[in-house]
Amino acid sequence: MYLSKLFVPITKDIPAEAKIKSHQLMLQTGMIKQSSAGIYSWLPLGFKVMKKIENIVREEQNFIGAQEMLMPTIQSAEIWKESGRYEDYGEEMLRIKDRQGREMLYGPTNEELITDVFRSSVKSYKSLPQILYHIQWKFRDEIRPRFGVMRCKEFFMKDAYSFDLTDEDAKKSYNKMFYSYLKTFNRMGLKAIPMAADTGPIGGDLSHEFVILAETGESQIYADKNIFQIDLNEYKFDEASLKKMRNDFTNIYAVTDEKFKKDNFDKFVKKENQMITRGIEVGHIFYFSDKYSEPMNCLIDDKNGKKTSVKMGSYGIGVSRLVGATIEANYNNNVMKWPKSISPFDVVILPSINKNNTENIDKAEKIYKELKKQNIDVLLDDVDENMSNKFKKHDLIGIPFQIIIGSKSKGDELEFKELNSKSEILSLDKIKSKLIT
Amino acid sequence: MYLSKLFVPITKDIPAEAKIKSHQLMLQTGMIKQSSAGIYSWLPLGFKVMKKIENIVREEQNFIGAQEMLMPTIQSAEIWKESGRYEDYGEEMLRIKDRQGREMLYGPTNEELITDVFRSSVKSYKSLPQILYHIQWKFRDEIRPRFGVMRCKEFFMKDAYSFDLTDEDAKKSYNKMFYSYLKTFNRMGLKAIPMAADTGPIGGDLSHEFVILAETGESQIYADKNIFQIDLNEYKFDEASLKKMRNDFTNIYAVTDEKFKKDNFDKFVKKENQMITRGIEVGHIFYFSDKYSEPMNCLIDDKNGKKTSVKMGSYGIGVSRLVGATIEANYNNNVMKWPKSISPFDVVILPSINKNNTENIDKAEKIYKELKKQNIDVLLDDVDENMSNKFKKHDLIGIPFQIIIGSKSKGDELEFKELNSKSEILSLDKIKSKLIT
Repeated sequence: MYLSKLFVPITKDIPAEAKIKSHQLMLQTGMIKQSSAGIYSWLPLGFKVMKKIENIVREEQNFIGAQEMLMPTIQSAEIWKESGRYEDYGEEMLRIKDRQGREMLYGPTNEELITDVFRSSVKSYKSLPQILYHIQWKFRDEIRPRFGVMRCKEFFMKDAYSFDLTDEDAKKSYNKMFYSYLKTFNRMGLKAIPMAADTGPIGGDLSHEFVILAETGESQIYADKNIFQIDLNEYKFDEASLKKMRNDFTNIYAVTDEKFKKDNFDKFVKKENQMITRGIEVGHIFYFSDKYSEPMNCLIDDKNGKKTSVKMGSYGIGVSRLVGATIEANYNNNVMKWPKSISPFDVVILPSINKNNTENIDKAEKIYKELKKQNIDVLLDDVDENMSNKFKKHDLIGIPFQIIIGSKSKGDELEFKELNSKSEILSLDKIKSKLIT
Repeated sequence: MYLSKLFVPITKDIPAEAKIKSHQLMLQTGMIKQSSAGIYSWLPLGFKVMKKIENIVREEQNFIGAQEMLMPTIQSAEIWKESGRYEDYGEEMLRIKDRQGREMLYGPTNEELITDVFRSSVKSYKSLPQILYHIQWKFRDEIRPRFGVMRCKEFFMKDAYSFDLTDEDAKKSYNKMFYSYLKTFNRMGLKAIPMAADTGPIGGDLSHEFVILAETGESQIYADKNIFQIDLNEYKFDEASLKKMRNDFTNIYAVTDEKFKKDNFDKFVKKENQMITRGIEVGHIFYFSDKYSEPMNCLIDDKNGKKTSVKMGSYGIGVSRLVGATIEANYNNNVMKWPKSISPFDVVILPSINKNNTENIDKAEKIYKELKKQNIDVLLDDVDENMSNKFKKHDLIGIPFQIIIGSKSKGDELEFKELNSKSEILSLDKIKSKLIT
């Protein structure tokens, strides 16, 4: 893609309400455009990043055997009355009357709807365990939407739901998802900490938040630094290993402020290992057993033919929020560097453009074609502006690798730069192998 | 995937309101489940088909240089007041008041919102032409939703928008999209006819519907059979060739009932070539020039620095509707056969299961692993039921190829069947090469 053709409305005007760096950066680099309070359009650059995150989430959900489906955004109020949450949910739920006066709502979460799908489909323990998920737009009518995509009204979320016969089996599903979440965030270059958390309006008594460290985070967090020493690669995807994994994590103190008790913190964590900082929630998992299946009559025949309420958990990842969260975690000293796995492009070519001499741009186009052949997703910045402006702009766009076609690039030896590092002179073949691995 | 693990709630109870075969089949094979009137959940089997259609649409949009983005589902009423359509649109528009009393709506289409994005981003003719598209859920509050996903309330649609400096340039964008649509439908195994059409609430004076033939179609169509003789492969993706392509198509009589005039039909089409039948609309393209850009003040500087309203067109494909439309076009004599490109699985293995002898199921599992290694997406039907029921079930699920592990499969020679054809005995290697090509 040539930058002059790409729809990236870069702007210097940052509205005053953009208070945190991810919100500012996403507006500056034309990743998003606000359409109304707390509601955004995702322009091509932002859309590409979100799509890559979505695909990593999908792959890791599929890996643990979860099956993808898709529930609608508009739900009937009826099922929420069955579960008892219709009145509880408050004004954050966007309530709608259709033309025939039926009470509808824009789903803020899907426990009721998936329970309704499940109860009419599955009758026997033989079909369990099951994990179903979808990646769909949700809506919460925030009274004060802010922080860009971090706390907006319409947001993109992966939510999964597990169904088991017994509480014991259900914990195995919970562990699978716990593992999947850590793997998902690792692949995005994020170090997420699982933390014991309150369950809020979802319910149940077992719950973990996955939190990444960032000064601008909304939650205060308290943790033992040793939690960073656990290496996920040491666990296998089997029942015993996953059980050990969750024990290893949860034996180390890590809580959000809701669960914080100073006495416990001092008792269980050595002074020098005490970490008190802020974090951003990027995922949240819940085990709530029969909280929905019981009132909604979602029954399963057990081995003896006896009907029992299916045991359920739910598991959310904020896909659109992760775009902002990744920026909060990676944007420092006026340089944003996207993790390779979710960068909008693999590499950008920056030719120094001279109206009277097309040598650099010709060379850039030749390299562009070469890289394209290797299926490398390359951006060519063909915009006619001086190099210093170009560098500043790309410090914000954040593609992690640059090929600079100026005085230092001679013949086949090219100036290659990784953001936040010094540039080096490399052959195109060496550059290709760096980009592909 | 093993069928016993796949979430496919197959049912024999077809509700009386399912009147057309696609609606019946989708409910029977657990592709969808109704959540409320005209609103559906897409279960794994249906979801997979829709996703494959979405990807073909995406690839063909990208091929012509359209850029993907994503606009939200909930829009502000303000921009619809600017364009003048807020009052016009009638009760089909789902109108919403948020908690602060602001007038919002669930987008039935996106001309206003994309014009708003564009006017704040692009100022100069130098950035033109541009084509932007998104694939997003839409809502139309149908008074009588029916025919399953064919005429439902919440539907998945690709809509693209072109921006050009002049009417002449805009026609070139129109031709690109015309070509892209025909290619898209061809890849799904559908023969779509472009037909001169009325523009309705979108506006403008140039418009084509893309219609596939099906007895259950909602529109009466009148066409010259010669339209099927045009071979899309004869055109190249360049301006002159695309212009010729559109001329070649539009010089042959083909209209929906809104545009039908008997005199013209008889004048321009020989009696023996007159085709009068029914069809399903799967795509619709519009050129409406400055209908939205003028009232919404979406201005571009031309070469002389003079401000002019940008010239726009819009282009829709009903992605969720195409799942139903493909069934209407392909489901005959109680056999549904999915086109290879959008089938939920590439092949299904059907072992004859004997509780006292695991030979067949063991063999099936071995073949399953072999095919998986080649990245063939295979379903193994491990459900314990007799073969006659299995065949009936798979006549509906519609995976085009079957490997039958029963008495006719001996050693490495396997019974292989393409739906609607006789089975043959083939080696696994031959089967693989059939599936991969």
